[in-house]
Amino acid sequence: MATKLLSRYPWATSPFVIGAPMRVMSGPALAVAVSRAGGLGFIGPGLKTTDTGVDLEEASSLIDKARASSFKTLSSSSLLPVGVGFQLWSDDLSTAMGTIEKYKPCAVWLFAPKEGQKDLDEWSRRIRAVSPETQIWIQIGSLGEAKSILQSSEKPDVVVVQGTESGGHGRMADGMGIMTLFPEVADTLASSHIPLLAAGGIADGRGVAAALCLGASGVVMGTRFLASSEARISRGYQNEVVRASDGATNTTRTLLYNHLRGTYGWPPEYSPRTIINKSFIEHRAGTPFEELKKRHDEAAKSGDSGWGPDGRLATYAGASIGLIHNVSDAERIVRDVRNDASRRIQGLAAA
Amino acid sequence: MATKLLSRYPWATSPFVIGAPMRVMSGPALAVAVSRAGGLGFIGPGLKTTDTGVDLEEASSLIDKARASSFKTLSSSSLLPVGVGFQLWSDDLSTAMGTIEKYKPCAVWLFAPKEGQKDLDEWSRRIRAVSPETQIWIQIGSLGEAKSILQSSEKPDVVVVQGTESGGHGRMADGMGIMTLFPEVADTLASSHIPLLAAGGIADGRGVAAALCLGASGVVMGTRFLASSEARISRGYQNEVVRASDGATNTTRTLLYNHLRGTYGWPPEYSPRTIINKSFIEHRAGTPFEELKKRHDEAAKSGDSGWGPDGRLATYAGASIGLIHNVSDAERIVRDVRNDASRRIQGLAAA
Repeated sequence: MATKLLSRYPWATSPFVIGAPMRVMSGPALAVAVSRAGGLGFIGPGLKTTDTGVDLEEASSLIDKARASSFKTLSSSSLLPVGVGFQLWSDDLSTAMGTIEKYKPCAVWLFAPKEGQKDLDEWSRRIRAVSPETQIWIQIGSLGEAKSILQSSEKPDVVVVQGTESGGHGRMADGMGIMTLFPEVADTLASSHIPLLAAGGIADGRGVAAALCLGASGVVMGTRFLASSEARISRGYQNEVVRASDGATNTTRTLLYNHLRGTYGWPPEYSPRTIINKSFIEHRAGTPFEELKKRHDEAAKSGDSGWGPDGRLATYAGASIGLIHNVSDAERIVRDVRNDASRRIQGLAAA
Repeated sequence: MATKLLSRYPWATSPFVIGAPMRVMSGPALAVAVSRAGGLGFIGPGLKTTDTGVDLEEASSLIDKARASSFKTLSSSSLLPVGVGFQLWSDDLSTAMGTIEKYKPCAVWLFAPKEGQKDLDEWSRRIRAVSPETQIWIQIGSLGEAKSILQSSEKPDVVVVQGTESGGHGRMADGMGIMTLFPEVADTLASSHIPLLAAGGIADGRGVAAALCLGASGVVMGTRFLASSEARISRGYQNEVVRASDGATNTTRTLLYNHLRGTYGWPPEYSPRTIINKSFIEHRAGTPFEELKKRHDEAAKSGDSGWGPDGRLATYAGASIGLIHNVSDAERIVRDVRNDASRRIQGLAAA
């Protein structure tokens, strides 16, 4: 299954490493760098759906440059060798379709529908109408969603299974660690023969190798790429991802930071994992929201010092923060985790 | 590290599979069967500490029988080739020491101290005084506990790292899925060179292989062995472990069932994962505890029908319930997961 999947992305190398479509932070530079390294980079949803077109335009030009230099393999597909993600509950379907038709990304990643499989089916149908070769990826984080896919007449080409270790928005009440969630979803979807990717809590070669053993055809990393030189992220935020450790006690799933930022409307099934800082600590201690909001907005004016243990700004990140110790080029991250994963598997096989 | 660890248990085969010391349910028959299969079986804590001596007496006689027949390898150690677990907050130290001195189990598994590392250190010192060759295993579920071990002058021989997917009692507020917890603990304890085992959410060859990739020197399974013919468990309970699926929505961590059974006194860091049934559903809906207790005690008289979706009795189990579909001999479970794990790793290495 992993080999068949890779054949769709001819520049890609095994094990298949994917850069998650993190909202705003996964921009064209990061996505192209991941693909250049033989992975597949996704551009995240923008603040507005129209932003995605701007990002894809820039990605196209970066890819043209890469093709002109040494990255010939990126030409071996007629599609754009980066993917793009949409946040279904907030993104505009028509705008998205125009963008997909124009840029023909190799893959579109659908996440967080308001009405579950119904919305996923509609987006999938429309995408296949405007760009039949574009592969449809759907992110799920629960067994219930896997069962809905089985019933669907618009089955995706790839399913991303995200464990609760993940950063950013994921399933709240029906999520679970990837160690049990992935194999149970895999058994449930076995008859569909859809390749599955593992996401959530994977930040180094150990996690990549482990995910492959669980049956994944590839792995998705998000938080690890927050600490890449190409991430579209504030320095203060990035420093905090590198600094923080002990994901179990220093991250939590909470809607607090969404609300402090004025973001409302996420479907109730989701909540984001974030690094804990003063806003959450004071919230837990009972400080009223209005006061927290005032302090938050003040901190937002203070630049990079708004993040960190004494900061107050949203620092969405996964439980893998303790495995990330430096900022690195995305290409190096991809090559390092791939090589380390392969070495580990070879080492265990020889033992 | 894995090879060095195995040399302590000369009958054991790689990958090293361990049967968890589940309270009461891991009796002598289960423990001996796991060791006979080339793993290491633990006897769980009893209702009273004196029960452990009775269990070890029976285990000794089972091992003598096994040695007399075909399981010669079990003789290759002067220690008893099964381990034994104690629940430090409730077990009696002096009684435990008498038992360890008399039976000399190859390993003692320490869990749930009232006063953290201080209690672990005292038990370790005392065990080493009465049985110097017995290996000390400590179970942790958080990074904080790993840091305490680093500071200790009575370091254990083995550390078991348990993710929150686990069944029964585990860390509540500072636990995390094994996918990120294990590698972060491994990095923290790297300088100690203590072999680490992975526990929680592992129920088949996929999980075993994944844990090895994360860096584990072996894996511990609990819930899988609840569905073994040798488990000391009611049929109704066992049927429910086999029947239930979707560990994310059908299990939860709650103290409710402890309290319904009249169990109080667990240190506040712990809570057990259990399969949800009517007691929890009605508790969540607001039914007063006294009423739930009455209904629970009534259900306790009804035998095996006290378990199941319409039942009310405690059904401690891990999030791996959806990966367990049959009751099998413990020996077959051990051999199957070991072979499947090895096959997976060989397959990935050859790909």
